[in-house]
Amino acid sequence: MESFKAHLDKFISINDEEFASILTFFRVVEVKKKHNFMVDGEICKSMYFVVKGCLRKFFVNEKGTEQTTEFAIENWWITDTFAYERQFKSDFCIQAVEKSIVLEIDLSTQEELLRKHPVMERYFRMIYQRAYAASERRIRYLYEMTREELYVHFSTLYPWFIQRIPQYLIASFLGFTPEYLSEIRAKLRS
Amino acid sequence: MESFKAHLDKFISINDEEFASILTFFRVVEVKKKHNFMVDGEICKSMYFVVKGCLRKFFVNEKGTEQTTEFAIENWWITDTFAYERQFKSDFCIQAVEKSIVLEIDLSTQEELLRKHPVMERYFRMIYQRAYAASERRIRYLYEMTREELYVHFSTLYPWFIQRIPQYLIASFLGFTPEYLSEIRAKLRS
Repeated sequence: MESFKAHLDKFISINDEEFASILTFFRVVEVKKKHNFMVDGEICKSMYFVVKGCLRKFFVNEKGTEQTTEFAIENWWITDTFAYERQFKSDFCIQAVEKSIVLEIDLSTQEELLRKHPVMERYFRMIYQRAYAASERRIRYLYEMTREELYVHFSTLYPWFIQRIPQYLIASFLGFTPEYLSEIRAKLRS
Repeated sequence: MESFKAHLDKFISINDEEFASILTFFRVVEVKKKHNFMVDGEICKSMYFVVKGCLRKFFVNEKGTEQTTEFAIENWWITDTFAYERQFKSDFCIQAVEKSIVLEIDLSTQEELLRKHPVMERYFRMIYQRAYAASERRIRYLYEMTREELYVHFSTLYPWFIQRIPQYLIASFLGFTPEYLSEIRAKLRS
């Protein structure tokens, strides 16, 4: 869990004793590729922090196709924030893209953590602030860029995205068919 | 500023004395319609809380058209979060849609506020959490809905949106031409 401590150190100051206490609020979960953390129609009970591996969030659209809206790699959080805060049923699924190690926390345990370690309010404030800033920019790109430009943009900004994520999931994230993604890649290579 | 106190009370517990102190960190700004709070190319120095009125955030696209990405009415915050946190130049503009009263805070003053009133970490954590939750859903809608469905969705979910926002700005937000918006409205009425 040294990587989680290093991650927290970027945002807040805590000593080893505090860190040990903070860690007791989380459950360490090791899962295989394709493990489902949450299936649509279930209450969204937890938030997930990726220690190692990669998770994705998706929904099944009207045509029955999985549409990926988010990936989380090391040091990223993932959940359906709206459903989590309200403990509602989610209409998203969360699944492991790779074999992964994850820290899981549920809402009431998170509230306890925040009561016992108020410094974690600052941590989560900064995490949500960054997540919101990223989504503001993403919404702008969705207005501004063609799908081809989006692909080039993500490839340039996030090389891990192209290296780690299977092609059919990249297509699902960008709203392409896998065939259209192949066409774009061929066009960019030529 | 009673409405700001009532707004804070939804998230945190503070007494009148604390509220009076918190308020001293903000600058009250009264502006006319079309006032520019921030112009693209300028450092994004502040966050804005709408006490009364309506603000919007937009960028100018390649064709020279204003593309609105966000509106803020009473009790909403607006800024370019990414540029604000880093004190970078913004590539967005923030403008008053109506005559407005706004609370403004800059980054170093906000940090002082958070040091003096750590309870405000919790407040901002919850604000960003909700903002992020809303943007997660908005990104899903951008994948899932046609432009016509988006219009119906926003009209139903946010009646104020249709009542208060001028038509050409609704068109700019939904990525329509004003002519296309008129067509949709005519179609929906028939």
